[in-house]
Amino acid sequence: MPTKVRIALDAMGGDHGASVVVPGAALALERHPDSEFILYGDSAVIEPLLKQHAALAAASRVVHTDVAVKMDEKPSQALRHGRWKSSMWLAIDAVKKHEADAVVSAGNTGALMAMAKFHLKTMPGIERPAIAALWPTLRGESIVLDLGATIGADARHLVDMAVMGGAMAQVLFNLDRPTIGLLNIGVEEVKGLDQVREAGRLLRETPRDTLHYVGFVEGDDIGKGTVDVVVTEGFAGNIALKTAEGTAKQFAEYLRGAMRGSLMAKIGYLFARGAFKALKEKMDVRRSNGGVFLGLNGIVIKSHGGTDVEGFAAAVDIGYDMVKYQLIDKINRMHGPPPAPPRVAGAAS
Amino acid sequence: MPTKVRIALDAMGGDHGASVVVPGAALALERHPDSEFILYGDSAVIEPLLKQHAALAAASRVVHTDVAVKMDEKPSQALRHGRWKSSMWLAIDAVKKHEADAVVSAGNTGALMAMAKFHLKTMPGIERPAIAALWPTLRGESIVLDLGATIGADARHLVDMAVMGGAMAQVLFNLDRPTIGLLNIGVEEVKGLDQVREAGRLLRETPRDTLHYVGFVEGDDIGKGTVDVVVTEGFAGNIALKTAEGTAKQFAEYLRGAMRGSLMAKIGYLFARGAFKALKEKMDVRRSNGGVFLGLNGIVIKSHGGTDVEGFAAAVDIGYDMVKYQLIDKINRMHGPPPAPPRVAGAAS
Repeated sequence: MPTKVRIALDAMGGDHGASVVVPGAALALERHPDSEFILYGDSAVIEPLLKQHAALAAASRVVHTDVAVKMDEKPSQALRHGRWKSSMWLAIDAVKKHEADAVVSAGNTGALMAMAKFHLKTMPGIERPAIAALWPTLRGESIVLDLGATIGADARHLVDMAVMGGAMAQVLFNLDRPTIGLLNIGVEEVKGLDQVREAGRLLRETPRDTLHYVGFVEGDDIGKGTVDVVVTEGFAGNIALKTAEGTAKQFAEYLRGAMRGSLMAKIGYLFARGAFKALKEKMDVRRSNGGVFLGLNGIVIKSHGGTDVEGFAAAVDIGYDMVKYQLIDKINRMHGPPPAPPRVAGAAS
Repeated sequence: MPTKVRIALDAMGGDHGASVVVPGAALALERHPDSEFILYGDSAVIEPLLKQHAALAAASRVVHTDVAVKMDEKPSQALRHGRWKSSMWLAIDAVKKHEADAVVSAGNTGALMAMAKFHLKTMPGIERPAIAALWPTLRGESIVLDLGATIGADARHLVDMAVMGGAMAQVLFNLDRPTIGLLNIGVEEVKGLDQVREAGRLLRETPRDTLHYVGFVEGDDIGKGTVDVVVTEGFAGNIALKTAEGTAKQFAEYLRGAMRGSLMAKIGYLFARGAFKALKEKMDVRRSNGGVFLGLNGIVIKSHGGTDVEGFAAAVDIGYDMVKYQLIDKINRMHGPPPAPPRVAGAAS
């Protein structure tokens, strides 16, 4: 492992681009001084921002490019226009060339996944990469995957996700045998989609020293923290994530309304404002910002496009942890050795 | 329409059986004095409870049966053991025989759906029934369907659900042209499952005077109340519902913890307790208890199995509204006339 954790940043990605990426990286650097950054994007925009963050400027270099992937481009468009030259591509390329250990982008999710898959390729034995995120729960945090990359995942993909999510839980939660659940619509074995049932069978029948498959879980088990890793196909996972975000916002809105509803409530709010502040921090989605692309030959972190400085820093933190605690090696170990290359008659070894 | 709304109750259904069903019905009767009830189940259990509710006793009759469907029975088992004789079956049978206008059960969901489908049959032109529920939102309430009956629904099923959910919104929200959204994982037309895209195309291309299809919505749009009716396949819908329930519980738990965390918070809580009470009522899932089975030749309401008296009464209220405002007629009108029977040569008209 290199002495420094080297992170490539797509400085043009996200709704706010460099104005969030640069101060976000500066904040992450404060927390992890053994980080180094390469910032890809328009140097005329990045350099003035860097001047305001001396420590970051000293730990970074800027690679200029005029091209940026737009937030609303289709993945195929982004690949066509942005390959070789966009800030997103170049940041991924740095990981490919081992100039960086991880890439973080707040850009277009579909484009980032398409480029990362195209350029870094999937790990041996992994067919489809997945997007995993940290989910705050009543017991702490869980990992939920996939959040939108594996629409229509089959049983084999779900098993791969269990392995990858398990490795991520080992890295982030420092657990020997993280518990794994398959998201389903009933805990009885008879219910749910065929591929979920089949994945359950495969996970039960393939005991692994490092995985602890506990069975089906339901949507409300995610927030309870019933298991360390919740595995689901991408469509349902994305809907679960967005629905939970919507419900949290709804609750916060109700609470705000209630506290403004009467003079007594306002007085009560003043007394309890320390408690409300703690609550707000607890519900802060920025703390768990950062989708991790799992199953690629390289660490790729997707920050929420609309996030702020604190949120982007959290995404960088996750990238840092993944490098520091060797996520990719862990997945490879848990998933078993890569298949031996086909023997070619007469080929020199 | 009969002068009274006649409701058949599976008095044995749910975690608490008649001890919740009887007082729940009594509460619903207070709110809708033009209701009548037939209670199916063990008369030795029901009769003593009825004695405590004179008004209900006067508006009810009890039909005794020893057989009850267990909460953990598989649908096929329930059909085998409970057909013709269980409280659940007999309550459905009352609707089939036009002795009742709706059936309400807090029993085993899978069994209730299987029996209702077997006995009442689906409406003309509807292939698969769906489960719809009211979802509290920032703008009031929306209808979300399907919540678990149509696993793997195709485009045609999704369109049927849009029609049925639209009719339910007309009935419950008194709207001429309720807005309809298809749940997807991105608002761009390119994203999501093939069947969701195809359903979107069908809904766009088939303008109906009574439906207003607005396009794709995402998970967080449910809580926002972006549309009146959210349509999705059963697996994703069930996961969305349960995940939202889990998140709401999580938030309530955080809030409770925060308000107990310090003396100042406790004092603040005392001042603001009226506001907290209002908030609690707002978040009360019992208020929207009651899944409506749509697409059957009869009105079937599924109450949550673990609900209490207030929650069961809410489920009865929904059944009452569906009868009173003629849900089935509305679906039939919106879905168009049933297909003409095939012409058989030589057959008399």
